[in-house]
Amino acid sequence: MDYTPFFQAALDRLQAERRYRVFADLERVAGRFPTAIWHGPAGPREIVVWCSNDYLGMGQHPDVIGAMTHTAERMGTGAGGTRNISGTSHPVVELEAELADLHGKEASLVLTSGYVSNQTGIATLARLIPNCLIVSDELNHNSMIEGVRGSGCEKVIFRHNDLAHLEELLAAAPEGRPKLVMFESVYSMDGDVAPIHAICDLAERYGAMTYLDEVHAVGMYGPRGGGIAEREAAMDRVDVIEGTLAKAFGVLGGYIAGKEAVIDAVRSFAPGFIFTTALPPAIAAAAAASVRHLKRSGAERAGQARQVARTKAALAAAGLPLLDTPTHIVPVMVGDAEACKAASDRLLARHGIYIQPINFPTVPRGTERLRITPTPLHTDAHVAALAEALVETWTTLGLPLERLAQAAE
Amino acid sequence: MDYTPFFQAALDRLQAERRYRVFADLERVAGRFPTAIWHGPAGPREIVVWCSNDYLGMGQHPDVIGAMTHTAERMGTGAGGTRNISGTSHPVVELEAELADLHGKEASLVLTSGYVSNQTGIATLARLIPNCLIVSDELNHNSMIEGVRGSGCEKVIFRHNDLAHLEELLAAAPEGRPKLVMFESVYSMDGDVAPIHAICDLAERYGAMTYLDEVHAVGMYGPRGGGIAEREAAMDRVDVIEGTLAKAFGVLGGYIAGKEAVIDAVRSFAPGFIFTTALPPAIAAAAAASVRHLKRSGAERAGQARQVARTKAALAAAGLPLLDTPTHIVPVMVGDAEACKAASDRLLARHGIYIQPINFPTVPRGTERLRITPTPLHTDAHVAALAEALVETWTTLGLPLERLAQAAE
Ligand SMILES: Cc1ncc(COP(=O)(O)O)c(C=O)c1O
Ligand SMILES: Cc1ncc(COP(=O)(O)O)c(C=O)c1O
Repeated sequence: MDYTPFFQAALDRLQAERRYRVFADLERVAGRFPTAIWHGPAGPREIVVWCSNDYLGMGQHPDVIGAMTHTAERMGTGAGGTRNISGTSHPVVELEAELADLHGKEASLVLTSGYVSNQTGIATLARLIPNCLIVSDELNHNSMIEGVRGSGCEKVIFRHNDLAHLEELLAAAPEGRPKLVMFESVYSMDGDVAPIHAICDLAERYGAMTYLDEVHAVGMYGPRGGGIAEREAAMDRVDVIEGTLAKAFGVLGGYIAGKEAVIDAVRSFAPGFIFTTALPPAIAAAAAASVRHLKRSGAERAGQARQVARTKAALAAAGLPLLDTPTHIVPVMVGDAEACKAASDRLLARHGIYIQPINFPTVPRGTERLRITPTPLHTDAHVAALAEALVETWTTLGLPLERLAQAAE
Repeated sequence: MDYTPFFQAALDRLQAERRYRVFADLERVAGRFPTAIWHGPAGPREIVVWCSNDYLGMGQHPDVIGAMTHTAERMGTGAGGTRNISGTSHPVVELEAELADLHGKEASLVLTSGYVSNQTGIATLARLIPNCLIVSDELNHNSMIEGVRGSGCEKVIFRHNDLAHLEELLAAAPEGRPKLVMFESVYSMDGDVAPIHAICDLAERYGAMTYLDEVHAVGMYGPRGGGIAEREAAMDRVDVIEGTLAKAFGVLGGYIAGKEAVIDAVRSFAPGFIFTTALPPAIAAAAAASVRHLKRSGAERAGQARQVARTKAALAAAGLPLLDTPTHIVPVMVGDAEACKAASDRLLARHGIYIQPINFPTVPRGTERLRITPTPLHTDAHVAALAEALVETWTTLGLPLERLAQAAE
């Protein structure tokens, strides 16, 4: 029996819907970020990356690279086992202390990725709470959804950042029934921010535990980079804070932070933690160096805020259809999968600007976009070139610019 | 409402069953493996690790460390995004070509870990096969079980390596119903090996697709380190081969290899691949260097085989209760959780030998053991010291040695 047709048919459906993705082969160049080498059809070419989640460029910070290379030279490249079987390295232990301190929590646990942290962390916590009802924001990330699914618990979904709906759902549950409210701080595709205090108010009123994904905020918000909850002095009100080491911290890995017993329960029961090789010491050391640096230094955050503001201003002035956001995420709306892909292709081929199209299922159909993430390392010249390239692309493809939209009204 | 008691209660149950795990804080020392520094209660101390899954010591190979440090210096520490969003680095692309070649397959896909490869890979493949029946070895790893669960497909379990039972289950399924047979080559706790050809014979006869986990075999078996399937010239009979970069290859990450359409389907549909940051270029480059080295060099495999044989001979001669295995895994049986932990503690504290106790749920109750993994870097002196320390520990704790067992017959 030939199984290939099943897989080919699924791929053909993607192709037919123009959702088949081709990955660009990029070569990062340390010290020259956001510049990179694109290995395209016509050979290697220098381009500017405008969609990196290495939000602060920490992936090329000398202290972070130094920690990685130094630790690899001293301790080798791998952990050598699961955490239990010889994989608990000294740098991982130090990193966990650094992260607990970052979030003002008793303990933290480092896992393979932010994805795995959510998936196995949520599944494990919810399973240990008898008769738990999960109350989840409708825009929560796939990793949280998979965690909910894995828990086997009943779940209800509240409309995105809708406090009235959240309260309605909490009030509808039987009094005394354990509830877990799950949400993100910065939503990565729309760049909007959750009302953390107000959600915690409701959680307290209705006796719910809270789980907050700060993946797109850690390192970038709060005086020490503790995230939106730190900025709003809400860290102690959230029960579990989850984050990544792979975005603003520029390395790899994920974690949860919270009370000792909560973290120890995940450590002791989560299959996605127990049955997999630990992060290499060199990765943990690099991440710790990054966390430590961003606790002390506000320069990267200030630089990011400045270049984000300049980018937003330049694109708005050029009439590009920006989604207004209070964060570092700058979505330029297209609203059509094929046009979005065409814009991205043209930016790369013609302008040497790399911005991946964001299509369904990452965002709802009809809200396809280019998602731009200015970093402290994008210069004003980069910003000007971006605005110009986008206008050229929009004009060539016949996409609406704001002035045209106004003229048509 | 205070949620801590739920988690504390679960932890208390573990403590009561003596299953609560404490991780030893180890510091690997490149160039001196299997020696490491143990950060114990009395401060740092030099010990010998006998339970590493860095099976060949590749995690400290100069080429592998060099690839990691060189790439980190050139490209920085992180990938900067998911594979789709700026995370497809040139070293990852090269690594995937290297792995497809290793297994003689059309394509391969690198994921965050072997765990994630199984979990999201199996779930995705099985979901794309209409009405798929999963036929799974009872001793399959947790990551495979989670993959099966995630697929939502019906599953049946065959007794471990039991061909008659496998055939019974395959024959019982309706003719023409798609079936996926899932198994491992080397089972990591008992060190036994699956009859790959015989399983493929059955799969062919009953029209089943095959998925083989070679996590504990890649790098170590076959002329180029392609695993047991390579050694037995069965690679082309298995549809999907899954492996890890974190054990014999000494780094981090996992992968699947197979036909183009199969791999592309996982690439295009697996949430655990799509929605997570890619592996850092430095990790991919280190893994590729390791794979490349072990394709050409048989010295590590020969060294491992030699030291494994010597270890087995020394422990058997000392009367220690070895499980007889045809592989590099040397289980010394204890059969009691507390005694197993006590033996491990004594070996570390008194003899400076680190072997993690393997207890339930990793192995069935009553089969608790010390799992010893000799590497090419364990010297004959290490082996002699190990045998002596084990005998001292067995004698002190009143555990049976074979000579005593024989005397009692
Ligand atoms: C909200 C959110 N949580 C978690 C993750 C996963 O983090 P990681 O890339 O470390 O797996 C992502 C994206 O990658 C995300 O957007
Ligand atoms: C059979 C098997 N498959 C997969 C894995 C997971 O591999 P990784 O450590 O790369 O996550 C393991 C153990 O870790 C394993 O024993």
